[in-house]
Amino acid sequence: MAEFQLDPAFVATSEPLGSLALCDARLQNDARYPWIVLIPRSPNAREIEDLHPLNRARLVDEIVLVGAAIRAIGKALDLTVDKLNVGALGNVTPQLHVHVVGRRVGDPAWPGPVWGQGEAQLLTSVQLAAALAAASQALHL
Amino acid sequence: MAEFQLDPAFVATSEPLGSLALCDARLQNDARYPWIVLIPRSPNAREIEDLHPLNRARLVDEIVLVGAAIRAIGKALDLTVDKLNVGALGNVTPQLHVHVVGRRVGDPAWPGPVWGQGEAQLLTSVQLAAALAAASQALHL
Repeated sequence: MAEFQLDPAFVATSEPLGSLALCDARLQNDARYPWIVLIPRSPNAREIEDLHPLNRARLVDEIVLVGAAIRAIGKALDLTVDKLNVGALGNVTPQLHVHVVGRRVGDPAWPGPVWGQGEAQLLTSVQLAAALAAASQALHL
Repeated sequence: MAEFQLDPAFVATSEPLGSLALCDARLQNDARYPWIVLIPRSPNAREIEDLHPLNRARLVDEIVLVGAAIRAIGKALDLTVDKLNVGALGNVTPQLHVHVVGRRVGDPAWPGPVWGQGEAQLLTSVQLAAALAAASQALHL
């Protein structure tokens, strides 16, 4: 039986938040947006259809929970969240993952999508600690 | 009680496929990609969190079903589908909707997202009929 192994591409760009029932949750290290990536611990999954139907329902539940964490990060970093953006693309990193991003009117990519737009601005150590704390509390981790 | 009313923005850019249990399904009129938009018939919903939990599970089921329709459209239009892209953005049209798009390596926006990239190329009437027929069959409509 195949084992789940996190694609190293996520390690380079994000910080671990912890494990939800289905997904590993990771904070994208980018001061421009409150941004969490969910990676289902399902070996070899590339598409949502590759998940067991019960896990598909878990995935959408975790997307909603992470939306609350995005709002909490927004408060901690003083970034307004006017809209959540949810995306499962995987054109660059094929391992199934879902982005949940907090958007504000006038943010650097508004109203376009954030993916592939500009360069990430790393969080300071103070911002990173604040974002991790806010997200962990919202996710009950 | 509020009634669901489809945002006219969808009418301008897509053709009706029919009603699934939760969502109206519409074929985006764009020859560059097999592309369907799902709009939950839930009045005033803007975010996935605004849906009843049972409807959130329905939404992901319909996303998976629409993925099969995207592959069927790809075959009908001779557009390879290497990857599905799923996105709920709503930065421009706030009514809750989910895009399901068939991507191929080297397509006009590859590997970036399709939203906000270039101009739609309208389907010919022959292409439109073929895409609608393929999608309707896959969606059991």
